[in-house]
Amino acid sequence: MNTNCDYMNINVLRLDHRVKRDVRITTHVCLTARAFGASKIYLSGEEDEKLMKNVEDVVTRWGGSFEIAYKKNYMNLIDEWQNNGGEVIHLTMYGSQVQNVVEEIKSSEKDKLIVVGGSRVPTKIYKKSDWNVSVTNQPHSEVSSLAVFQHMIMDGEEFNLDFNDAIFEVVPVAEGKQVNIHENNEKINDF
Amino acid sequence: MNTNCDYMNINVLRLDHRVKRDVRITTHVCLTARAFGASKIYLSGEEDEKLMKNVEDVVTRWGGSFEIAYKKNYMNLIDEWQNNGGEVIHLTMYGSQVQNVVEEIKSSEKDKLIVVGGSRVPTKIYKKSDWNVSVTNQPHSEVSSLAVFQHMIMDGEEFNLDFNDAIFEVVPVAEGKQVNIHENNEKINDF
Repeated sequence: MNTNCDYMNINVLRLDHRVKRDVRITTHVCLTARAFGASKIYLSGEEDEKLMKNVEDVVTRWGGSFEIAYKKNYMNLIDEWQNNGGEVIHLTMYGSQVQNVVEEIKSSEKDKLIVVGGSRVPTKIYKKSDWNVSVTNQPHSEVSSLAVFQHMIMDGEEFNLDFNDAIFEVVPVAEGKQVNIHENNEKINDF
Repeated sequence: MNTNCDYMNINVLRLDHRVKRDVRITTHVCLTARAFGASKIYLSGEEDEKLMKNVEDVVTRWGGSFEIAYKKNYMNLIDEWQNNGGEVIHLTMYGSQVQNVVEEIKSSEKDKLIVVGGSRVPTKIYKKSDWNVSVTNQPHSEVSSLAVFQHMIMDGEEFNLDFNDAIFEVVPVAEGKQVNIHENNEKINDF
């Protein structure tokens, strides 16, 4: 097993979160970012402390060192990221096709900031990003775009990530559920 | 370009839809199923005509022949599917790891029904499924699990799908948006 530190440093920026409307989608974006190897997510739009707390609780239970932070001014974050030598990839159904650019993106070892949009992404994001990338040119979901993009730039290595200090750890089984609970040093079977 | 017919026939079954709580997630599940090569999705749980109409409107605008249907009794559908020689794959974070079983699943040319769960999946789904498959053993999203699983069993061929008779067709560009509108035989540039 490997730790996240062995891989490219990936952060995610989720634009334009709306507390009432987006809580589940944004939560799924956060958990996807974590499960597929990002080390941190920044939320922009409306501040949502409850959502952030829920994601932090998942990290406590399921391990690893994933961070979540609120960033009101996301253009400052993008500028800082690029000034520090990092690259910015904006996922959009209108962008260059992922299958054509993924090798180029992977070939650079620079830190990656993946931007996933909200309802309407401003033009300046398209202009500032190092790559605007589409995961299919069909409408679907920022959750699925992020997952497939992370899977592709990780070359499937997200399946070997080690989420250390977890309380809950799934033991994969062909049928049923098996979870090791490290806090109590016991094993449960759901069936 | 290829049509969906050149590939394995994939349908998706979404369990336990709740009209008030799940409308956006279920919509994302439907659009992900379509964009990544499924020909049909069945919704179970609460019937939601508005959601189904919205998905059908996307199909009209963006092309292809994706179908959506409501199925109250999903166990009947699973039985029928298997009786007709098809296979059932249930996506669950507790299942066999996708990286270990995807080649076996792909090697069979039988029709595939992918089941994605709701809040609590009954034991009989685990027992009836030909495979229970995890896309990472971490909590994230049925949307991301479905997308990455479809991407893996399609071997990335979802990027070559042809959604015929579309009104809107994205022309991928490195910056900005370009969409061909076939109804009016014109081209728009957003910037």
